[in-house]
Amino acid sequence: MNITLEQAEKAIAVAKSKAVEIDTKMNIAIVDAGANLVAFGRMDGAWLGSLDISIKKAKTARFFDMNTGIVGELSQPGQPLYNIEHSNNGLITFPGGIPIKNAAGEIIGAIGVSGSAVENDHIVAEAGAMSL
Amino acid sequence: MNITLEQAEKAIAVAKSKAVEIDTKMNIAIVDAGANLVAFGRMDGAWLGSLDISIKKAKTARFFDMNTGIVGELSQPGQPLYNIEHSNNGLITFPGGIPIKNAAGEIIGAIGVSGSAVENDHIVAEAGAMSL
Amino acid sequence: MNITLEQAEKAIAVAKSKAVEIDTKMNIAIVDAGANLVAFGRMDGAWLGSLDISIKKAKTARFFDMNTGIVGELSQPGQPLYNIEHSNNGLITFPGGIPIKNAAGEIIGAIGVSGSAVENDHIVAEAGAMSL
Amino acid sequence: MNITLEQAEKAIAVAKSKAVEIDTKMNIAIVDAGANLVAFGRMDGAWLGSLDISIKKAKTARFFDMNTGIVGELSQPGQPLYNIEHSNNGLITFPGGIPIKNAAGEIIGAIGVSGSAVENDHIVAEAGAMSL
Repeated sequence: MNITLEQAEKAIAVAKSKAVEIDTKMNIAIVDAGANLVAFGRMDGAWLGSLDISIKKAKTARFFDMNTGIVGELSQPGQPLYNIEHSNNGLITFPGGIPIKNAAGEIIGAIGVSGSAVENDHIVAEAGAMSL
Repeated sequence: MNITLEQAEKAIAVAKSKAVEIDTKMNIAIVDAGANLVAFGRMDGAWLGSLDISIKKAKTARFFDMNTGIVGELSQPGQPLYNIEHSNNGLITFPGGIPIKNAAGEIIGAIGVSGSAVENDHIVAEAGAMSL
Repeated sequence: MNITLEQAEKAIAVAKSKAVEIDTKMNIAIVDAGANLVAFGRMDGAWLGSLDISIKKAKTARFFDMNTGIVGELSQPGQPLYNIEHSNNGLITFPGGIPIKNAAGEIIGAIGVSGSAVENDHIVAEAGAMSL
Repeated sequence: MNITLEQAEKAIAVAKSKAVEIDTKMNIAIVDAGANLVAFGRMDGAWLGSLDISIKKAKTARFFDMNTGIVGELSQPGQPLYNIEHSNNGLITFPGGIPIKNAAGEIIGAIGVSGSAVENDHIVAEAGAMSL
């Protein structure tokens, strides 16, 4: 089961609304179950450097089927996954990436958001992930 | 002058309609004047390999401010730009990438489309480029 | 709004003067609002390895519209942006990269300097950024 | 013997004058004897995609101590250096790259120019290479 483009565009629209609501400018990326980009939107004036980060967050969330912030806790110095970011052409392991599930609870893709403090990134990503 | 996300999403929507009309499934990418991705959409069932191609076509069209197919004519064996594709982390120089201009005729970005025969890619890209 | 080549060359000239004044040899890079290189100069005898670092500092400063040293504080182990350096084909997050603004306060590019202690890199970058 | 920054900046200034004279907008790169970038300038409005091409032309000219166009003749299908462009992280083998020699005839660096027809690129590169 893969997220559809229609679902991905809805998730981006909902995430954008949340970004506006909390007064931020975000890059928002959606990948499918194969971790390949399905849809993307960069809000006017959002950080350029967050383009790549948002896509890497979405991929990281699907690569390991967990929120990116959880991977980040495990990749700190001395922790089990230290420097896992070197794999897969670069992971991003701080909050803002969340798996997306269908009604049956199956993971069908992931969303990655970047453009503000990581707490805000996560809030916007969650709004998008919950939109289906 | 940079294309806005609203304009980019409209271009993708128009391109998608054209893709449906001619019975194809496309990857559609929009970059801004700095050749950075603004918006992207992959239609359900579109070729996975066309994801990267659509983005490279959009970048190539903005990199040289011309349709990608024109670059491709000049990059054939024996032609002036032979093997230009090795630059810029990889160009795509067959049809499907078109610069996007504003009402004043200034280039504000570019569209890249991939997923079918290059003639179809160009038709869909043109629909998107003309949508503003 | 993009920095012009004339402005970029002036920024490099001013930065070079400051580098001579504090007895250092620097690599100095200027990128535009799209984070693309506009001008570059490597002073005779400056570290070769600082060539790439100066360009990455300039890009990083524009990618996130802040001084590179600020990103570096946030990317330490345990901090919110830990290992952000894996994005965007490699960031440099220690001091020496500064956004460049026009008279209206709009960011039109960035400068990156590398070749000495990071405090010196920052001093030289600031001289260049303030030259417009 | 290496080209100095002062010499490189003079070569760029002369090349820019020639570019203006023939009504073109160029990216101009100078590398030293080690094929490492010494100075660079992108004229306002010059093609973005020519940024990387100009640097690769300069490197290619120094890598093989000959004009890039000569390498290109040898890299055509069926010729001895077919597809040499795959080496060195990407070569550019059409005209516009020229070695720079000192008064004693020793190669001290190279210039690469990109932004127009390859004949114009070569004319501008030659002006720069002859400036020392």
